[in-house]
Amino acid sequence: MANGYNGKMLRVDLSRRAISVDELKDRFYRCYLGGRGFISYYLLKELEAGIDPLGPDNKLVFACGVVTGVPVGGCGRNSVGAKSPLTGAYGDAEVGGYWGAELKHAGYDGIIVEGKAEKPVYLWIKDGQAEIRDASHLWGKSTGECQEAIRSDVGEPLARTATIGQAGENLVRYAAILNDIHHAAGRTGMGAVMGSKNLKAIAVRGRNHPALANPEAVRALAKWLRDIVGIVMGGMHAQGTAVGLKALNRDGGLPTRNFQEGVFEEADKISGRAMKETILVGEGSCYACPVRCKRVTSVSEPYQVDPAYGGPEYETLASFGSNCGIDDLAAIAKANELCNAYGLDTISAGATVSFAMECFERGILSEKDTGGLKLNFGDASAMLQLVELIAKREGIGDVLAEGVARAAKRIGRGAEEFALHVKGQELPMHEPRYKQGLGIGYAISPKGADHTMSVHDSMYTGEGPLLENAKALGLLEPLALDDLSPAKVRMVAYHSCWQHLLDSLVMCNFMPFSYGQVSELVGVTTGWNSTVWELMKVGERCLAMTRAFNIREGLGKKDDSLPQRFFTPLPSGPLQGVSIGKDEFEQAKETFYSMLGWDKAEGRPSLGKLQELGIEWVADYI
Amino acid sequence: MANGYNGKMLRVDLSRRAISVDELKDRFYRCYLGGRGFISYYLLKELEAGIDPLGPDNKLVFACGVVTGVPVGGCGRNSVGAKSPLTGAYGDAEVGGYWGAELKHAGYDGIIVEGKAEKPVYLWIKDGQAEIRDASHLWGKSTGECQEAIRSDVGEPLARTATIGQAGENLVRYAAILNDIHHAAGRTGMGAVMGSKNLKAIAVRGRNHPALANPEAVRALAKWLRDIVGIVMGGMHAQGTAVGLKALNRDGGLPTRNFQEGVFEEADKISGRAMKETILVGEGSCYACPVRCKRVTSVSEPYQVDPAYGGPEYETLASFGSNCGIDDLAAIAKANELCNAYGLDTISAGATVSFAMECFERGILSEKDTGGLKLNFGDASAMLQLVELIAKREGIGDVLAEGVARAAKRIGRGAEEFALHVKGQELPMHEPRYKQGLGIGYAISPKGADHTMSVHDSMYTGEGPLLENAKALGLLEPLALDDLSPAKVRMVAYHSCWQHLLDSLVMCNFMPFSYGQVSELVGVTTGWNSTVWELMKVGERCLAMTRAFNIREGLGKKDDSLPQRFFTPLPSGPLQGVSIGKDEFEQAKETFYSMLGWDKAEGRPSLGKLQELGIEWVADYI
Repeated sequence: MANGYNGKMLRVDLSRRAISVDELKDRFYRCYLGGRGFISYYLLKELEAGIDPLGPDNKLVFACGVVTGVPVGGCGRNSVGAKSPLTGAYGDAEVGGYWGAELKHAGYDGIIVEGKAEKPVYLWIKDGQAEIRDASHLWGKSTGECQEAIRSDVGEPLARTATIGQAGENLVRYAAILNDIHHAAGRTGMGAVMGSKNLKAIAVRGRNHPALANPEAVRALAKWLRDIVGIVMGGMHAQGTAVGLKALNRDGGLPTRNFQEGVFEEADKISGRAMKETILVGEGSCYACPVRCKRVTSVSEPYQVDPAYGGPEYETLASFGSNCGIDDLAAIAKANELCNAYGLDTISAGATVSFAMECFERGILSEKDTGGLKLNFGDASAMLQLVELIAKREGIGDVLAEGVARAAKRIGRGAEEFALHVKGQELPMHEPRYKQGLGIGYAISPKGADHTMSVHDSMYTGEGPLLENAKALGLLEPLALDDLSPAKVRMVAYHSCWQHLLDSLVMCNFMPFSYGQVSELVGVTTGWNSTVWELMKVGERCLAMTRAFNIREGLGKKDDSLPQRFFTPLPSGPLQGVSIGKDEFEQAKETFYSMLGWDKAEGRPSLGKLQELGIEWVADYI
Repeated sequence: MANGYNGKMLRVDLSRRAISVDELKDRFYRCYLGGRGFISYYLLKELEAGIDPLGPDNKLVFACGVVTGVPVGGCGRNSVGAKSPLTGAYGDAEVGGYWGAELKHAGYDGIIVEGKAEKPVYLWIKDGQAEIRDASHLWGKSTGECQEAIRSDVGEPLARTATIGQAGENLVRYAAILNDIHHAAGRTGMGAVMGSKNLKAIAVRGRNHPALANPEAVRALAKWLRDIVGIVMGGMHAQGTAVGLKALNRDGGLPTRNFQEGVFEEADKISGRAMKETILVGEGSCYACPVRCKRVTSVSEPYQVDPAYGGPEYETLASFGSNCGIDDLAAIAKANELCNAYGLDTISAGATVSFAMECFERGILSEKDTGGLKLNFGDASAMLQLVELIAKREGIGDVLAEGVARAAKRIGRGAEEFALHVKGQELPMHEPRYKQGLGIGYAISPKGADHTMSVHDSMYTGEGPLLENAKALGLLEPLALDDLSPAKVRMVAYHSCWQHLLDSLVMCNFMPFSYGQVSELVGVTTGWNSTVWELMKVGERCLAMTRAFNIREGLGKKDDSLPQRFFTPLPSGPLQGVSIGKDEFEQAKETFYSMLGWDKAEGRPSLGKLQELGIEWVADYI
């Protein structure tokens, strides 16, 4: 590795049908790593402030990280980012599967998609060669139909695809991009951006594994992971990400009926165990991963659920299940299939349905508005019909396709009170009154409400392997769930840096690697002598860049908010009476800003901080 | 290590002749580590602002670190700190040898000395037992005589001693404390504080090696070090710290005649090679260290130089040599012996002599002032006489024993222009116009001018193992010596954190360990899973605490200064015409503050920064 780590970004201008390659050098990789680091760099440098996220001036950046495609669990993922049509702020989504690794093996660390194709196209990349192909015959097709057609077109049954469905075509603001039709880049509406560019899919085939600085050490880490997952990840393997659903419910933190409650009386019916005992037909995986947390479900009655679309993860089980008051696992699996086929984010889609149900139950929406649909909590059939309407932007679905924030404004009549979002993005299925540090993360995340932005407080309330790992960052003590003291804010801030690092490496959050092992993996892949300090600073750098992007778009402290619901007490369950203190919340935000060297007025990174992070160029953009 | 790393501080109240023990717990160690971390903690917590450094209210804290006494090179050292009588600010000195390891083996991580003994005493510690003993018979004795007498008194020829000489007794403001009479805790006048307490010495014998979390891994690191020093530290072994003297001179950065010039025409005569070829009779070492950089010199004519006092290091060679215009190696060795016998800091002593010489040559001091001494640059005999006068506070020596800052005020007649100090402490032998980043470090160091505060720019001007190591902190590019850009300031800031970490571990600066290996050493010693992030944050925490101490004492931005000389060009040599830009310097200071989360007005750590470092208690003290 005498010349360090070098690579390429593919640049595709759809307006001009021009394809070019950006050669990137070692220093650039070491500074930004990939994924969110690359995306925030390109969006800051190349977008004008105030552009229409669904216009041709937006850019859609697919990005891997330096470890993507390395044969170690957690390293098959990719990020995709753009200015978000849902939030108007920095947007990106991370996604598992095999597509990221395949792109890397095809010779690219990412793709910058610019402009807008005159008519539908798809992109075909094989071993370094890229071409723009007609996709007129694919427009209007489900992700599954599209994938099948493309694989047939290009004659590569092993081609990996990143595809939008009709939701993306219809510019549903929370449309997703599906990798191999069952791994979703769900959040912030990247599917709508792809649709706005008339880009139906990107299919990739690559057979060149990048050189590793120390292949033996990479293999040793992969082996360590294989050996440990049997010990510490058995639950995740057996039940998928839903493994913790019942514990959340037990503690009173399972979002239920649009976050009105924290306990769902039928949680047992939608748990990971219930799924395993009923509709599960297999475990899916991502590239090189020994955990195999992905679900494959099949249902024949009363809903036909095609196992090709995978199965619901925790977020999906809660968003279409408890949070819609629905205990019908088959219906949830169907909703998941619909979302993956139409290309919808299951979190935002489910949260939007629950919002509509609460509005309906409160009389803010009537059957007149819904075209006769009775949107009561617990009505699985209505839920499924609504998902179809949203994807197709039909009837009430056209309003709800805008996301809860815009929909509530359109609906009026006080609906905004029940539109649970941050910066316009619907809340993931983690109750911020339960995990209060995560609530700060929701508020401050550049992407709007995001459960991968920072700490999950429940991991750090007692001694255990997770706290033991956290000590390696100097986070020495367990902290209560509802603690918003500076010590908790520090935990949130450090985890935010680490998460931005993971999302720049584009590594899975679930791998049980220590901080030191992640830096070791970076080192043995690239040949760098990276430390956790260096990696944390990449994360902090990325966090500052995403913040800067949002400041340029006019966002500030007021947008680092939580819905009013979370400042009012939970009415029942183990957390009855618990709310987030408004003053504590505001204080915690300021403390977060100050800890990161951002000003207290708007959370604007100071020049000194930008200089310390080696990105003083950002100052010229904000 | 189920209960973590626990230990003890000995607390000795000399006024009440009371001895007690503070039991310290794992969390305290992990937060502060030892050394400067402990000292700054205790001084902030236990001293009142504005106390007389030479009064009984000052406390003298000896401190080891968690790795002290571990059988690995660089781990035999100790720190000793107090409010400095030289600067009125935070003071401490680090020192090599065996005493630190011996104290650890005797069961203590440190000693807090309080109050003032009625008459001279010494402290004798053996395997956990401590007693205060009469030292009336030792007062007025040289360090060597004192050590011999104590070893005989206690019947332990292997007792390790930390001793002051007459300079400490006489409250010379830059008096040192000598470990085993030839390793000096030189800087900031800790010997005077010890003298002010009527404490002549601390003798220690300990035979219990602390438990190691992973003895095999500790041994592996020790072996790695032994194997590598032959390859990378050969020059240091052969020539001691003076190995770089000729290169500094070649580059025009060897302090000469009170920093009036950067080239000494007779540098060859005082080089490490010259010493090796003439007066060197052996190499000394510190505990467990394979480098053996310490010198042992012997001279019979014209000066009797006792090899028991070791031999001059680079700082001593330059301060009494080039910076006094003296090319007589035997005389420099004699000056070194006198300083070690009287207990004087060779840097400040030599710098004070050169200050006096410049004043004499400029007519500010005359023979009337000096008692007939002709203090011309190059006059070795006058230099040696002056050292004696200073130690004994006789004649002009009484004025000069105050340090150049106070002496210049006393002398008047424009002498202050030639008093080269920061915060009252004389400059070490590194030209800040040559190493301009180090100049920023001089200015901002809590201790006043200190060459171990931060980066030595010359290490990072080109590709090489040192830059390669620095990349592990994200410092990716070589930077020119005279660069004061934000990138250089970042290098200074990061190195300042790392140096404060090393001085909290109390590890030698010269060990060729990577950052990762240092964190590994901490881990395999303590059982912690420490990362470089955690360690850097300990360093930053310590830096904030020392800063807070100084702010409480009324110091601020104006005290982060450099003497005017360094803003004027060097008159000759390779650096002819080079000076530090005043505006660039002031800007760099502000950038440093901002990078560390200190305010621009006074460099006061923000509350958010203190909270991020887990030391919000400090806010109550400033």
